[in-house]
Formats: sequence, structure tokens, C-alpha cells
Amino acid sequence: MTQQTSKLVIVTEKLLLKKIAKIIDEAGATGYTVVAAGGKGSRNVRSSGQPTVGDFYSNIKIEILTANREIALRISDEVAARFFDDYSGITYICDAEVLHAHTF
Amino acid sequence: MTQQTSKLVIVTEKLLLKKIAKIIDEAGATGYTVVAAGGKGSRNVRSSGQPTVGDFYSNIKIEILTANREIALRISDEVAARFFDDYSGITYICDAEVLHAHTF
Amino acid sequence: MTQQTSKLVIVTEKLLLKKIAKIIDEAGATGYTVVAAGGKGSRNVRSSGQPTVGDFYSNIKIEILTANREIALRISDEVAARFFDDYSGITYICDAEVLHAHTF
Repeated sequence: MTQQTSKLVIVTEKLLLKKIAKIIDEAGATGYTVVAAGGKGSRNVRSSGQPTVGDFYSNIKIEILTANREIALRISDEVAARFFDDYSGITYICDAEVLHAHTF
Repeated sequence: MTQQTSKLVIVTEKLLLKKIAKIIDEAGATGYTVVAAGGKGSRNVRSSGQPTVGDFYSNIKIEILTANREIALRISDEVAARFFDDYSGITYICDAEVLHAHTF
Repeated sequence: MTQQTSKLVIVTEKLLLKKIAKIIDEAGATGYTVVAAGGKGSRNVRSSGQPTVGDFYSNIKIEILTANREIALRISDEVAARFFDDYSGITYICDAEVLHAHTF
């Protein structure tokens, strides 16, 4: 059983995780993966141009495998509309082909 | 020197890492990358629907660049057959083009 | 507003982050994401074949979304030329389509 999928990636500030998780759930996606992330193009390097040591991984990278591109776009639009005026963030789509999946 | 590659991604429970690393080695893949991951669609959010605070990153995301699709499928099939009845997990493939590689 | 992009991924040793960040900046990329990573095909598993417990996540995975393939190749060439004789590392490219982006 093989299915074509879109993988939506959202990199943004950690404090938005709960609200974005709710948007993902409501869009009908069945799960997501979260990884702690740092980097540039985010608040924690704004002033000095270099990542701060204290809280380097102050961002999150959320990956959502969706059954089709429309669901991915809907989540991305909602996240950007609600948060990207006030918080830094980026969303992008990659192709991915799910091979096996089992979640409790 | 540029070569076309498949990237296999496995997201599953942390305690399976050693056994999966053995499967990857035996399939002839030369390396893999591991990242700590949390999320939904995994045990740690089963009861409440929200990630637990105590051990949020209780999953791992393993990425394996393989020389061809067949090796990626073989690893995925073996991992799913041995573990996905008892543990939550997902495997998927993306295209990736390796540019430079140097490992000791 | 949708744009086609290349995503360059660099997995290498943590201590190179600052120098690679400088290369990324100078190539004109606007940002990057960093994630702590472990794995095989890197120094920390060279001797035993298994990851060491003490400092498992001694690598980093850097992701850079670039406006075109040329910028990604330039960064990759520079990183490999300067560091991959002395340090372990791999660089690869994936397709990615940026949907929304907002950075301060």
C-alpha cells in the first residue's frame, strides 16, 4: 500500500505549538512530528546576527504528512494568516510518499 | 560528482533505535541521521490529545540516504514488519540528490 | 505568492556551525534552520559502530531554502571544499515550494 502525499513543513516560534497543533487537528491531518530548531531568519538572532547561546533551540520545526496538497495549503494559509504578522515563520511543501504507517 | 538518491524517513519510538540501526547496516546503507522528535500520532499524546511535558521528545526521526529506491523499500518493509504491530511509527520516501559526502 | 525553491541540507559536526553560517550569509541566503543530530557516518560512532551515549547529538543538520539551485550548489561546494577533508559531513538537495515566509 503506497500513497502519494504532501509534506508540509512549518518552522516558527516554539510558543505557537499548541495553537498550530489545534489548526492541524481541525484540518483533518492525522498526525505531525515536532523537532526543536534554531537558526537565522528568526528572532533569536535578530540583534547580533549570531544565534544566542542561552536558548538556541527556541524554534520548532513541525512536519505534517497530508493526504493531498489542498489540506497542506489550508493549514499553511491558516497558520500564516493568524501568526505571521506577529511571529517569524516559514511554511513550505515537499513531495513525500508514505510507505508504512501505524499509530495508536 | 552528483548522484540521485532516495531519502527514507522513519519516525518511531526512541527505544527502537538500536534495532533499526542494525537493519539499516545490514541493508547496506552507509549512514543515517537521527533527530529527537515529538508529536501526535504517537504514544505520548494518546491519552490527552496533547503532548506530555515530561518527555515530549520521546520519538526519533531517522533519515537514511540510499543509493536507490530498492534499498529504501527493503529497510522500510523490514522495520514495519518487525515493529509496527507493537509500536507506533511511519516511514516515507523523498527524493534527494547528494552533492558531497565525506565520512570517516 | 508561491515560489519554487531548492532546499539544501548539510549534516556535519557541530563545531562548524559558525563558519558555515558565515558561508550561508555570504552566499545571499536569507536564513537557515539548525537541528541537533546524531547518527552513523559520523565521528561519534567511528570506533564502536554504535552511537556513544555521552554526546549522542554531536552533529547538526542545517537546512537552507534558497531561491534557486545555483545558490544551493555554491554553498555546498564551499562547505565541502573547506571542511570535508578534515570533518565528516554530507550535503544534499531536495525540492521544496515555499508557501509563506515572514522573518523579522
